[in-house]
Amino acid sequence: MAKTIMGKVRSNTQGKGKPTLGTYLFDCLRKEGVTEVFGVPGDYNFTLFDTLEEYEGIKAVPTRNELNGGYAADGYARVKGLAALITTFGVGELSAVNAIAGAYSENVPIVHIVGSPKSEKQKQHKLMHHTLMDGDYDAFRRVYEPISAYTAVLTPDNAMAEIPKAISIAKRLKKPVYLSVAIDLVQQPISIKTPKPEMRKTNESSLKSASKHARKMLKPAKKVVLLSDAKVKSWKWEPLVREVAEKLQIPAASTAMGKGGFDESHPNHIGMYGGAFGSQKVREIVESADCLIVAGFVPSDINLASETANLNPKKMIIVQPESVSVGGQEYTDILGADMLRELAGLGLTGEQPIPGADRPYNSGTQLDGSLPLAAKDYYPLIQRLLQPGDIIVAETGTFAYGLGQTHLPQGATYIAQGGWQSIGYATPAALGACMAAPRRRVLLFTGDGSLQLTAQELSSMMEYGCKPIVFVLNNGGYTIEKYLNFRVPVEDQPYNEIPGWNYVKLVEAFGGGAYAQRVRTIGELARAFHDSELQRSDKLCLIEMMVPDDMDAPEYLKRMSEEMEKQESGGKK
Amino acid sequence: MAKTIMGKVRSNTQGKGKPTLGTYLFDCLRKEGVTEVFGVPGDYNFTLFDTLEEYEGIKAVPTRNELNGGYAADGYARVKGLAALITTFGVGELSAVNAIAGAYSENVPIVHIVGSPKSEKQKQHKLMHHTLMDGDYDAFRRVYEPISAYTAVLTPDNAMAEIPKAISIAKRLKKPVYLSVAIDLVQQPISIKTPKPEMRKTNESSLKSASKHARKMLKPAKKVVLLSDAKVKSWKWEPLVREVAEKLQIPAASTAMGKGGFDESHPNHIGMYGGAFGSQKVREIVESADCLIVAGFVPSDINLASETANLNPKKMIIVQPESVSVGGQEYTDILGADMLRELAGLGLTGEQPIPGADRPYNSGTQLDGSLPLAAKDYYPLIQRLLQPGDIIVAETGTFAYGLGQTHLPQGATYIAQGGWQSIGYATPAALGACMAAPRRRVLLFTGDGSLQLTAQELSSMMEYGCKPIVFVLNNGGYTIEKYLNFRVPVEDQPYNEIPGWNYVKLVEAFGGGAYAQRVRTIGELARAFHDSELQRSDKLCLIEMMVPDDMDAPEYLKRMSEEMEKQESGGKK
Repeated sequence: MAKTIMGKVRSNTQGKGKPTLGTYLFDCLRKEGVTEVFGVPGDYNFTLFDTLEEYEGIKAVPTRNELNGGYAADGYARVKGLAALITTFGVGELSAVNAIAGAYSENVPIVHIVGSPKSEKQKQHKLMHHTLMDGDYDAFRRVYEPISAYTAVLTPDNAMAEIPKAISIAKRLKKPVYLSVAIDLVQQPISIKTPKPEMRKTNESSLKSASKHARKMLKPAKKVVLLSDAKVKSWKWEPLVREVAEKLQIPAASTAMGKGGFDESHPNHIGMYGGAFGSQKVREIVESADCLIVAGFVPSDINLASETANLNPKKMIIVQPESVSVGGQEYTDILGADMLRELAGLGLTGEQPIPGADRPYNSGTQLDGSLPLAAKDYYPLIQRLLQPGDIIVAETGTFAYGLGQTHLPQGATYIAQGGWQSIGYATPAALGACMAAPRRRVLLFTGDGSLQLTAQELSSMMEYGCKPIVFVLNNGGYTIEKYLNFRVPVEDQPYNEIPGWNYVKLVEAFGGGAYAQRVRTIGELARAFHDSELQRSDKLCLIEMMVPDDMDAPEYLKRMSEEMEKQESGGKK
Repeated sequence: MAKTIMGKVRSNTQGKGKPTLGTYLFDCLRKEGVTEVFGVPGDYNFTLFDTLEEYEGIKAVPTRNELNGGYAADGYARVKGLAALITTFGVGELSAVNAIAGAYSENVPIVHIVGSPKSEKQKQHKLMHHTLMDGDYDAFRRVYEPISAYTAVLTPDNAMAEIPKAISIAKRLKKPVYLSVAIDLVQQPISIKTPKPEMRKTNESSLKSASKHARKMLKPAKKVVLLSDAKVKSWKWEPLVREVAEKLQIPAASTAMGKGGFDESHPNHIGMYGGAFGSQKVREIVESADCLIVAGFVPSDINLASETANLNPKKMIIVQPESVSVGGQEYTDILGADMLRELAGLGLTGEQPIPGADRPYNSGTQLDGSLPLAAKDYYPLIQRLLQPGDIIVAETGTFAYGLGQTHLPQGATYIAQGGWQSIGYATPAALGACMAAPRRRVLLFTGDGSLQLTAQELSSMMEYGCKPIVFVLNNGGYTIEKYLNFRVPVEDQPYNEIPGWNYVKLVEAFGGGAYAQRVRTIGELARAFHDSELQRSDKLCLIEMMVPDDMDAPEYLKRMSEEMEKQESGGKK
C-alpha cells in the first residue's frame, strides 16, 4: 500500500507491517526530498524524535531554540523546496511563531509538526504543564491559524488524509502548514486510506484569452521589459523567466525581493530595479517600457521603493502563481508557469538591443588595501569574491541593502527575507542552507545587531560540521534602524545601541575549532577571506568586520532614508 | 485632567498641554509602579521608544531579542506586580509569543505594547514590510487573542478608555494584555475621557454563606492544614495565608508551583508537598488532614505530582481569586482575599501542635570539600548559602526540582515557571528581577541546556550593571529530558545532547568584566561563591558547575521519572 503513495521511494514502514503515524509522516516528507528535520526536543515530542532516530533517510537536526529552528527550516526550504520543523506543545511551538509567520509572508513551505500531550489527558482537559492551565488544548492551533495555510490535529484515523493534504497545500501555496499530534499516537498504526491528491490545473480557455490579450499588448510594443520578482524564486520559475526573456529577446531586471530569481550572469539581465533608491539607468528602462511583464509580483513597500516606483498597471502583464493580469484585466484559474510558457511561445521577438547592465559595484580599479572598511569599498570587494554556485545569505540590515546591489555569479542562490525582514533570521537560515546543500559554499552576511538575536546557531553549525564563511559587520549597533528613524538625531536613540561583543571570542566560547579573524581594512578583509578559503574545508570561518563609522551604509540605504524623511515631512506622500 | 487619573504621580504631560497617546500610556504604567519597560526597537515602534526617551520616570531596557524581553518582563512583574514590553509589528511581537503565553499560564500581568505601521498605510491595506503581504493588519492581534486577557488597537480617540481598561484587566486577572498602536498616532494628542475604573467587589451574602459552610467543616476537624499554591504569589496573598495559619494555628505546606508564597522561615511551615515525589512526611500530614484549606489552587500535573496526589475535594476549602469552593460546593463572586480574611477571623484555633518541618537538604554535618559535584551534596550547600531577601530564579530542568526542595530564608522571592516550564526562561527573568529590585541579591540557577536558548541576556545584564550570581549547571545536555523520556535508553537520545560551550569564555565574549569560574568540587563551589560575594558589588558573577555525571539529578526528579514510567507501563494510569 505504502508503495502507491511513496512511488519509488522505499518506505521505512515497508516490510514492517502497517505504517505508524510517525513513519507515514516521515515517508511523506522524504518523498518530497526532505532529508533533514529541524527542531528542539521537548517532553511532548519525544516519540517523534525517537521515531526519527530509527528512521532511515531523514536526520534530526536540533537547533539551540525553536525560533532558530524555524529560521533554519526556512533557509532549508528555500534551497530544497520544502522543510519540516518539530517542536513541543506550547513552550516550543510558540517560540517559532515569528519564523513561521515569516515563511508565510515570504512564500516558503514548511511543515511544522507539534508533539502534544497524551490524547487521554487532552480529552479529560487535564491541567498539564506547558498548557494555559485552563484545559484548552486548541489554543495554540488557533494561534497558528492566521499564519498557516492549513492546520490539522492528526490521529491514526485521519493521518493518511490530513498529512498528504497539508503537504500538498504547503507545496501549492508555498506557505507553512501546522500539524499537531499527541505523543501517544505517533507510534500507533494508522488506518489505510487512499489520499486524493489535489491537482490545480490551468483553465485552457482562460489561458487562451489571457494569451490573446497579452499578444495584443506585446505586438505593437517597442520597449518590452521583464521584471522578475519574489514569487519566481518560491515557485521555482527561474528557467521559465529566462526562457521568456530569451524568446522575446527583451531585457530583464530584478526587484529587491526577487534578487537571484533571474540569472544575473545572463546577457539579458540589466540589473536591479529599485525605484528612486536603486540604479537610475535601470529605473529609466523599466519605467519607460511600453509593456512590462512582471513575474511573481509582490507590490510591497520594499519592491516599490517606498512608493517611488512609477509602474502603470495598464502597461503591465502580471503573472502570478494562479492568476494573470493583462493591462489591468484579471484572468483567474491560470497557473503562472503555463502563462510564462505561453508568453515564451508567442513567437514575438523584441527589436531593440538589450541595454548594458548597471552594476554599481563593478569597478575595474584595484582597491587600496590600506583603506579602513567602508561600504563603498567592501561591497565591490565582496562582489569579486562571489563564485558561481554560492549560496549567499543576507541579513536584514545594511548588509541586505548593499548585497542587494551586487552582481551575482551564475548558479548563485540569494537568500534574504525581502519583505518580512526579521533581524536575526540569516544566521539560522545559513544553518538550513548548509544542511540543504552540504557541498555548496555558503556565505553568511550578518550584522552585530542582528547576530545578537540568534547567535546560538553559530554553535549548531560548528557542532554539525557546517563550514560557511560568516561575515559579521560590526558597526556597533542597529545601524539600519538609525537610518530608518530619521525623526530624531542618532545620539537620542540609545535604544539602538547594543552591547559590544567580541565575535571571535564568541566562537571560542561555542567550543572553538573555528577560524575567526577581526579585520579593519580592505586588505585585511581580502586576506581573511583568502585564509577562510583555505580553512573552510574543515571548519567554520568567521570574519568580524570592524567598520570605524557607525553610520557606514550602502548608497541605496542612504537614498532610502532621505526619501522617507522627505515623504514624512510632506515632500511627497 | 490627568491629575484625577494620575493621583499623586506627577504626569509627564502636565504643564505641556494635552497628553499624547504615548505619554498617557506611560503615565498609566508609571502610576502602577512600572519604572522600566523591556523591549526591542524596530522601525514601527520608534515613536514609542522616542517618547520613552523623553519621558521622566520610566526607563527603556532593550533586550537582545523579543522572547527574552518577554521573559524579562515576566520576571519583573513577579517582583513588582506589573510589567510592560514594547515590540514592533509582526517580526517583533511574534517572537514574544511564548513568553506572553507563559505569563498567561502562570498568572503574570504584562502590558504588551506593539508599534504598528502608519495608520494610513493600514487603512489602504498596503503591503508594508513586516506584514503577511496580504493587506491584513489584524492577523497578529488574532495570534495574540488566545493568549491575552484583552487585546485592543489604540487610537487617540479610544486611548483614555482602552489603556486603563486593559491595565485593570491585567491587574485583576493577572494575565497579559495586548495593545497595538500605529507609529504615527503615538505622539498625537488624545481625546479626553473619564475612564470608568472597573472594580470587582465581593458579594457579601455569598461570602457569608461560604464562611458559614467553612466554619461547619473546620469546627469539628482535628487536623486542619493549609496548602499554599501558585496564585498566592500572583495575587500577593502572602500576608493573608500567613495570617490564616497563625490565627487558626495550623501547619502550612507549599505546592511545587506555590513555592515561596508561604514564608518558609515561619514556624508553621512544614515543607513542600509533592505527592509521591516529595517529602513523605509532609504528604502524610497533607493527605490525612480532615480539612485542607488550599489557597490559589492550580491542580496541574506538576502540583498533583502526576496524579499521585491524594486530595479529597469533599474535605477541601479552595480559595481562588474570585470564587471559593467549600467541600465541593462552589461560591462565586467572592474575592479570595476577602475569604482568607474571613477564615482568619473565624475565631477557630487548632488544637494539635504544629509538626516539625521536613527539609530534605537540612544537614548538620560539614560537607567534604573534595567531593565532586553531585546533587546530594550541592543542594544542601546551596541551601546554606541562601540569605534572607534573596531573589532565587530557578530554571526549568533538574535545578527547579532540586531548588524546589530547599528551605527558603525569610523574605526570599522564588521565581520559576512552575507550570509553563519553558526552558530558557530563567536567564532573561533574572534580568527582569535585577531591574525590579536593584538592591536585592539575585541568584540565577540555570542549566547548560536551558541557557543555550537565551544566553544573550547575560550580556544585557552585564551591559546594564546587573550583578546576579549565576550558577550554570553543566551536565552536558538536556538531563531533565533524559529523565522524562524513560521510553528509550539515554544513548538512543542523541537529540538530547547539546554542543559543549565554555560559559566562562562566553561572558568574556559578551564584553568581559564579569567574575567567572569553573568549579568541579563542593569545596570549589563554596569558594567560588565566597569570591562571588566579594566581587558582586561591581560585577556579574558566573559559576559554571561541572558535574561529572550527566544524569546527576535531585531525588525528587528520579522519583518522578520512575513513577511516570510505572504509570505508562500500566502500573497506574
